[in-house]
Parts: sequence; structure tokens; C-alpha cells
Amino acid sequence: MDYQKIIEKIYDEVKPLIEKGIVADYIPALAKTPANKFAMTVSTVNGEEFCVGDVDDNFSIQSISKVFTLTIAMNMIGDDLWKRVGREPSGNSFNSLVQLEYENGIPRNPFINAGAIVVSDAIFEGRGKTKNKILQFVREISGNNTLSFDEEVAESERIFGNKNRAMANFIKSFNNLNNLADDVLDIYFHQCSICMNTKDLAHSFLFLANKGINPKTGDIILGTRKTKRMNSLMLTCGLYDAVGDFAYRVGLPGKSGVGGGIVAVVPGELSVAVWSPGLNKYGNSLAGTKALELFTTYANNSIF
Amino acid sequence: MDYQKIIEKIYDEVKPLIEKGIVADYIPALAKTPANKFAMTVSTVNGEEFCVGDVDDNFSIQSISKVFTLTIAMNMIGDDLWKRVGREPSGNSFNSLVQLEYENGIPRNPFINAGAIVVSDAIFEGRGKTKNKILQFVREISGNNTLSFDEEVAESERIFGNKNRAMANFIKSFNNLNNLADDVLDIYFHQCSICMNTKDLAHSFLFLANKGINPKTGDIILGTRKTKRMNSLMLTCGLYDAVGDFAYRVGLPGKSGVGGGIVAVVPGELSVAVWSPGLNKYGNSLAGTKALELFTTYANNSIF
Amino acid sequence: MDYQKIIEKIYDEVKPLIEKGIVADYIPALAKTPANKFAMTVSTVNGEEFCVGDVDDNFSIQSISKVFTLTIAMNMIGDDLWKRVGREPSGNSFNSLVQLEYENGIPRNPFINAGAIVVSDAIFEGRGKTKNKILQFVREISGNNTLSFDEEVAESERIFGNKNRAMANFIKSFNNLNNLADDVLDIYFHQCSICMNTKDLAHSFLFLANKGINPKTGDIILGTRKTKRMNSLMLTCGLYDAVGDFAYRVGLPGKSGVGGGIVAVVPGELSVAVWSPGLNKYGNSLAGTKALELFTTYANNSIF
Amino acid sequence: MDYQKIIEKIYDEVKPLIEKGIVADYIPALAKTPANKFAMTVSTVNGEEFCVGDVDDNFSIQSISKVFTLTIAMNMIGDDLWKRVGREPSGNSFNSLVQLEYENGIPRNPFINAGAIVVSDAIFEGRGKTKNKILQFVREISGNNTLSFDEEVAESERIFGNKNRAMANFIKSFNNLNNLADDVLDIYFHQCSICMNTKDLAHSFLFLANKGINPKTGDIILGTRKTKRMNSLMLTCGLYDAVGDFAYRVGLPGKSGVGGGIVAVVPGELSVAVWSPGLNKYGNSLAGTKALELFTTYANNSIF
Repeated sequence: MDYQKIIEKIYDEVKPLIEKGIVADYIPALAKTPANKFAMTVSTVNGEEFCVGDVDDNFSIQSISKVFTLTIAMNMIGDDLWKRVGREPSGNSFNSLVQLEYENGIPRNPFINAGAIVVSDAIFEGRGKTKNKILQFVREISGNNTLSFDEEVAESERIFGNKNRAMANFIKSFNNLNNLADDVLDIYFHQCSICMNTKDLAHSFLFLANKGINPKTGDIILGTRKTKRMNSLMLTCGLYDAVGDFAYRVGLPGKSGVGGGIVAVVPGELSVAVWSPGLNKYGNSLAGTKALELFTTYANNSIF
Repeated sequence: MDYQKIIEKIYDEVKPLIEKGIVADYIPALAKTPANKFAMTVSTVNGEEFCVGDVDDNFSIQSISKVFTLTIAMNMIGDDLWKRVGREPSGNSFNSLVQLEYENGIPRNPFINAGAIVVSDAIFEGRGKTKNKILQFVREISGNNTLSFDEEVAESERIFGNKNRAMANFIKSFNNLNNLADDVLDIYFHQCSICMNTKDLAHSFLFLANKGINPKTGDIILGTRKTKRMNSLMLTCGLYDAVGDFAYRVGLPGKSGVGGGIVAVVPGELSVAVWSPGLNKYGNSLAGTKALELFTTYANNSIF
Repeated sequence: MDYQKIIEKIYDEVKPLIEKGIVADYIPALAKTPANKFAMTVSTVNGEEFCVGDVDDNFSIQSISKVFTLTIAMNMIGDDLWKRVGREPSGNSFNSLVQLEYENGIPRNPFINAGAIVVSDAIFEGRGKTKNKILQFVREISGNNTLSFDEEVAESERIFGNKNRAMANFIKSFNNLNNLADDVLDIYFHQCSICMNTKDLAHSFLFLANKGINPKTGDIILGTRKTKRMNSLMLTCGLYDAVGDFAYRVGLPGKSGVGGGIVAVVPGELSVAVWSPGLNKYGNSLAGTKALELFTTYANNSIF
Repeated sequence: MDYQKIIEKIYDEVKPLIEKGIVADYIPALAKTPANKFAMTVSTVNGEEFCVGDVDDNFSIQSISKVFTLTIAMNMIGDDLWKRVGREPSGNSFNSLVQLEYENGIPRNPFINAGAIVVSDAIFEGRGKTKNKILQFVREISGNNTLSFDEEVAESERIFGNKNRAMANFIKSFNNLNNLADDVLDIYFHQCSICMNTKDLAHSFLFLANKGINPKTGDIILGTRKTKRMNSLMLTCGLYDAVGDFAYRVGLPGKSGVGGGIVAVVPGELSVAVWSPGLNKYGNSLAGTKALELFTTYANNSIF
């Protein structure tokens, strides 16, 4: 399969879409991202890498970080985690408090904000220690030791984070938060602020295409069963309120962020990361979603 | 892969669960099903078949029929169908009117009752004609010309179908039903009443494991792209409010019915049907769900 | 108090509003009502009557009829009625199914459609018999023996009544309807179709200003305690989703209908009926609401 | 009317109910209130006062304070206040976030917690200054210069106030809070902590029975129109999710608090305050509600 040719063809085809979406503007630090960017990286379990576009530009991974903290939590806590957070699609917009109220403070899944906040609480061992652990983990799986938090973005999230603060306090009112809301949110806002490029992102997800093993180092990042389950969770819950549409059009487990990144996994074969800041109405990268749809069409590698 | 050995081992392991679930009793015709039944059939695209348990017993397929009418609708109507019904998981119990109200009469997906009623309306060409078309279709893909409706079950559904009647009238109040509510419900109640055994069921779904082609006849039942999409829809929406749990534990596209049947697909390889009438709290077969979980574990063929 | 002068002054002041509202058009039979109508009648417990505007024009009383059937039900059934319907404001638009779902088929109060359908079921003794009983009751309390149903309106309601049909079937699915949904709806659609003018309407409500006694005949229509309670129900639930606004601006127990009628009661003194077909965003007569606000201001007779 | 005799008779009759309710225990400071307390004071616009029971015991007025801050806000801000908070009954439990979400951060009325938080924000001029203003106002209308905040209760509310903190941050996320959530909550938690006895409480509400004028001093506390409107607001929204039940049984404008106090107003005549800490399922004093029901029955002074 000539992935280089495929992604170049895709780049050509999605160009008209690149500036069509809306760049996230709920915090100033994100709003200033140039709209005309696009990058795509395919990383295979055999060690090959294929790139097109602005693949050296760093961007804010935002919600994609929820996969990283969930991986840490699955290793730290095991199945008890699922007493505090569900595994079902939310069927509502990604930051809704309604469902949380009807379900007594147990978030529907770890990829909606409420669920990720509970995960951040579950792995909390102090502000500094937990932030360090997350950063070390992301550096390890990406193979890039320079990755770090964007403190400006994290601070911006804190200042404009009233809805997430409402959510954290609401979860705490149901006794599903062990630490102070502000401490947990410090972790959450920082994890969302991590910056990387599509190469880093594709590398970071490669263990999910390789039964949980980092193909470059041989390290076991996550057990085989848990890896399958992470992939199933991404497929059913990873794309906010557009999981059905993404599964229907792309047909791969994936995770998106409002920074415009999306990463997906073809189990046994590869990971693929795209980035383009303009978002569609679901909060997912417009050009990025189209690029991944074309990718599974041309490479014929949907899991269905 | 010795599927016969695998399903025999599974049968042994799930025996303690067989009478643990609750047999559906919302209509008398279903309530009288013996609780102690279990059957499992694996049918491969190469023409092999493996059976264990009560594989000659017929049961009511109920919601599994939604895949059949959706297949007919996808062929008859094409993409316009998606203007009238969504493709997102519902995140609520399978017969909720709430979401329908907030989303102006557009059901979230074709596998919740509201969505299936819209699909029945979309393929409606008269009571007799449409029921005949459905029956012919099911006989063709199952290869069993004796299949038919269970009129007692259909009548029972009609008598006790106040919630579905509420739903159909509600959808009509949003102008998303072209025909009379009672006409559409006649189709819906009949499709749910179709009876078959696990062999018929496995055969019926084999085209979804074979890029849309019936491997026995070579007939194209559904286009390749549409087949992938049907599988993605089953994975994200096929198990009521337990899609996440099923994807997490089983990891295959599937569809369940309150009659106790579940059928799943391993793309490119096989279909697998189970039946055991006792249901878990989500309305899915208790022993059947466990059997499928063990199946993907032993055969190592989850799509993730 | 010179009520004649007051209502003439009011008529002058509300004239600019009379054609500003939107005439109900959800059924053709209502849509053809001329928008430029206005009538107002004050009827005192001492037997005086004051009129202004189109007071001889009949209009469809619609939801105002809910007070009549509730009066019949309170006499027929007593406190057991409140096991089947609540007495709390709905806090939602008047035909919402959501609340009904969360509260298991017990409508919030007898003045939302769902509640009135339950009341119609509670007094059901056969289609003909119950319709006759309602008509006799309304003729008696209005003192007008020519009042009758408008069969064209009733039939129009039936044809376009999908939402009410959804509601009735939904309530039945919770076992809170003893009769067939279509039988109950026949009563409901007919009671809504009753036609009268503002004089009839003011007369009909006079017993509620007179401790339950018809001041013209001395007949006890409703016990004293129950009369107070009917008034409190009208104040807290009688104006759809605008009870707070109406209580705030008018400060009297009242009931409105989408036909443009509103009737209110000053306990111990009088009833006042207004009619103007143009509705505000809450489904209440725009000019009528303003007229009543001015009435309690000028006559200084709000209950607060 | 021999009010003394009436309230003594009532005291006798409600005695069996006094320890039946549940004392609020969501904060330790409230949980320690003895359950066996009951007090009742009637205060007339003519300067008479009638007392029975523990009328010298102070209790936490909690939500009753919402009437005081709303009075301040209606004087400070006028009708613009209603752009930020509605006047409709909520139809849901008193601290629900659901409705707030569906209505974009505009609370349904000033007597649910969300609405009172917006009112606290509207009158905010600094923590100390606003708390002083509230205290001065309450001292003035009660005629008791010793009234003050219970700092232990206020601190307890703060510590266990995760749900209110969630609410305040959520409202802020809709830009309906001008000040910091924690600053506004400091006002809110303090106003709820004010302690008084039933005599103070009856005196404090007497202006609402006297067209807005303090009958003891002649001071205009609130304009006549605004006073009527405050009474209508209390009737339609003052008793959490039991306004309909209270209007039906008692038939007076009133306001309750989870400390077990309820105060009601007979316009033109009197105010009546009761206190008994045991609450019914709606969060209103069990014996207190019954006492008020008996009061309007015996004194025959419901507004209906």
C-alpha cells in the first residue's frame, strides 16, 4: 500500500475544505491559531512514517489527551475505575450537565469532559506529581522528550473554564470526586494544553494499533485486552456527539480535540493523525474528518 | 480455527447463566418462552456452519428485524433516508420519547423503536405489499422459504403497543411519517414477529460479513460501502443502551432483540448467532452476551 | 366601582394590540377566525353585567373547557382524582411529553393537555353519554341552552391531533387511562370545540367567584372548599407556561384557550371574560392579557 | 377574629406531626436542630401579635431570605432584573441544573437557588458592603437590631455547597453572573444563615400584607405594585416543587426554608410565621404546612 501517494492525493482533495471550518474561539489562546493549516501523518507498526502538510507545526491536543490519562488510569486502578465512570455513548453534546444529573454524577464515559474530570481525579496524587506523570507518559509514548504543557493555554482554560468548574463541583456534590475541584481542574486544564505535531500524535497512538506494545521500544504500554477495549471505547465514544457519523464515514476507532487534531487507529497496522484547525458543527476538524474518510476509502482499511 | 470446539466450550461455560436472566414478559406471547433454552450457530463466508444447543428452535427475532428493514430502505431510498433518521447512539433507553421531542421528531438512529418506525414508513407501499416484501427478503437471505410472521405475536404487540403507538403519532406530529400511524405500526409489529432459529439468523447476516454479497448465491444484497456502514451502525447503535458495554466486551458489530437473540458479524469471516431468552438489565440476552464475549476471546477475532 | 367605564377605557387602550398577536392556525377551523375581534364582559355576583366590543360573537373556548370537565370530575370522583393527576405547575410548554415520561404517566396538573385527557378518561361513561353530560353542564352554568359543540372544529382537532393522540397512548402505556385512547380523545376534542361568547363565558365562571354557588339559580355547582381549590389551581396552572407572568401582571385566578378567550375570577365579586383571537408567544390572547392587567389595575382588585 | 384561640387550637392539632418530618441534615449546623420544636406567630397590620409555642427560639431562615434580597433588588434595579431571571414556576426540584441548561442560564424564578444566586449577583457591591446592606434591611423590617448571620451555618454551607458552586459557575458560563462565583456565593450563603424567631419573621413580612408599607414605622419598603407582584411570585414560586399543593391547601402567598420556617401573607390583614424543623418530601416544614392549612380554614382567609 503506497500510503505516501494516498495521503498526497487526500491533501489535494481536502484543500478546498481547509479554511471552511470554524477555529475554536472559546479561549483567546486557541482563537489565534491560523485557519489555513493541514497536516497528516501515517505511522505503521513496522516503523514506517508518511507525512504531508504542516507536520512540524505543534497544536493543542485538547481532548485527545483524554486517551492518555485514561491509559494511565486503566493501569493504575483497573476495573474499579468503571464504578465511577460509564462506557456508553452520551447521546448529547459533549459538555452537557443534564445527563450527569439524571445519572447521579456518574459520567457516561471517560471521553466527555465530565468523565475526563473523574479520570483526572482518579489519578490525582498532587498537582505537580500528577502533571509530571502525565508529561513523562506522553513523552515516552511519543518518543519526543521536548513535549510540554502550554501554560498560556492552560491558564486561558482556567479563566474561561466556568462550565468545567460547574461540572467538577457538580460531580463533587454527588461524591464522585475525591480531591478539591480546583486541584482536579488544574490537572485537566494542563493535560488539554499539551502541544505536539501530527508525527508525535501518530507515534503516541501506535501502541493502540500494536496490541498495547510500543513497537519502537517493545515496552508494554497497556495489556492486550485493555488495548482492545480502549479502541472500542474510542469507536463508540471518541468523537463527541458525532461518533455515529464518524464510524459510518471513517470506520476506525479515533479521538478528536477542539484544537483540530484527530487521531485514528487501524488495529494491527497503523495509526493516522490529522490536524486542521477549522471545526465542523460537532467540534471535530472539518478537513481532518474528510481526510480520514478518504483514507479508509483509498486504503480500504476500515475495521468494518 | 476449530469453531465447533470453541462454541462447545462456551456452551459449557455459560450454562450456569442460562436461566439467570428475565424472559421478556411485556406481551403474553413472549412471556411463555421457556427460559432454559440456548443455541449458538457460527456461519462462515466459506460455507461452513457450526452449531450447539437448541439450534432448531424458532424464536421471535424482534428488534433484529430492524437490520432487515433498514437494508431494504438503504436499497430503496439511499442517502435521503438520513434526512429522516440520524446515525448517532441514543444514550437513553430504547423507547424514550424525550430525545425525540428535543430533536423535533428525527429519531437518533434506525435501531431505536422510533427510528425503526420511520424506516417502516419509508418502505411502506401498502400493508400487504410491504409485509410480503419483508418476508421475501428475509426468506431470500436466510435461504429458508418457510419463514413467516407469528400472527399471535404481532397481534399481541398491537394490543400492548401503546408506547409504540404514542411514538408513531408523536413522529407524525412532527411530519416525519407519510402514512397513517396504524398502517406503519402494522408493518413494524409484523417485522418484529418473524420467527427463526439461530441457523437461519446466522445465514441471514452472512452478507454483512461478505461485503454485502450472499456467499451462497453470489447475489448482491447491499453495496460494499453500505455494508460497511451497516456494520458501523450496528456497532454504535445496535445494542440499545448497552452499545458501549457490548463493544467493550465483545468488540463486534451486532444486533439484539428482546426475544433473546443476538447476532454479530466478523467482517470478512463469519456471522455468529446466539439465542437464550433470559435478558439482562439492558434487554439483551444474558447468556448470549457472555457467549459472544467468550467467542471473541477464544477465537481472538474482535475487530479491535 | 363603575365597571362599564373601566372596560370602555380598557377597550380604547388595547385597540392598538388587537391585531398584533398571531391567530392559532394549527387547525384550519381556527385559522379562519378574524383577527380584529375583541370583546369583554364583567359579570358580578350581584347579577350585574357590563359589556364592550364583540360580545355576541361566539368563539371556540378550547382549553377553557378544562375547568368545566375538572369541575364535573371533582364532583364525580373526589380526592381519588389526584392519584391520577398532579396539582403542580408544569414549568414546560403545555403539550410536552418529557415531563410525562419522567413522572411515569401522571400529568403534572389537570390544565395541561395530558392532565385534561386523564380527566376526560375519569369522567368517561360512553362517548355519547359523556359528551351530553358536558354539554348539559355548560348550558346549565352559562344559562344558555343553545350552546353546543362545533363539529367542524372537533373533526379538525381529530385529524390534526397527532400530538394529543401520542399523549393519550403514552399515558395509556403507563396504565393511567382506563378507556381506549380514541374514545377519550373524542370527548377531549369535543369539549375543546364548545363555542360561546364572552357573556356566556363570564356567566359560566361566576360560581367560582361565589363560593361554588350559581348566583342566578342558587344551585351548588361545587363545594366551597373545592371552589377555593379550583381557583388556586387556575392561578398556579391555568395559563400554560405563563402562569407566573399572568399572576404577576394580572393577579387573578384565570384560564385561557388558544381560541383567544381568557376568563378570570375575583373571589366574592365577579368574573371577567375577554376574547381577542391574536395570541402572544405563550399561546394566550395578547390583547386579552393586557385588558385583564389593566382591569385589575383600574378596579384595584387583584387578589394580592 | 380570635387569632389567639385559633393558633392554640392549631398547635394542639399539629402536635402529633411535629416530630414526623425529617430535619434537614445536608449541613451539620442544621442537622443538630431539635426536631420537637414548633412556633407560630400571627402579626396584623393593626399592630396586634399572637403567639404560640417556641416563639423565642431562633432558627435559620434559609431560603426565606430570598424574599429579602429580591426586595432589595427590585428597589435597586427595577424591571431590568427580569432580563436575568424569569418569573415562572420551575416545575422541577429546587436545585435542578437541567432547566438552567435548557434555558441558557436564565433561572426560571428568583426563588429557586439559581435565581437567588443571580439576585445576589445583581445586588453585589463588595462582600462586606452587600452583607451589611442585607443585614441592615432585615433588622429594619423585623424591628430587631440584634439579628445577624450565623457564621457557623454560612461556613458549613460553603464547605458543603458543591451543588450551589456548580450552579454559580454554570450561570457564569452563560454570562449571567457579573462577579466572581465565590464572591456571589459568599453573599448567598450568608443571607441563608440569618437567624430569627417567628415573631421577627412575621414582623419582617408585614409590609407585604400592607401594600409595601411597614405599618410600625410608616416607611415605604416596596411600592404598591411591586408588593402585589412579590406576593404573586411567592404564590406561584415560593414553595419549591410544592407551590401547587400549598396554594391548593393553604391558598396564601408564602415562602419556606429548609430550616423549617414558613411565612405567609393575607393581603390587607396579616402575616403569619410558623416554624417546625421536620420537613416533608418537598423540603417544607411538615407541621408548619399543616398549621397554615388549618389557619386559612379556621380563619377563612385564603385569598381564593
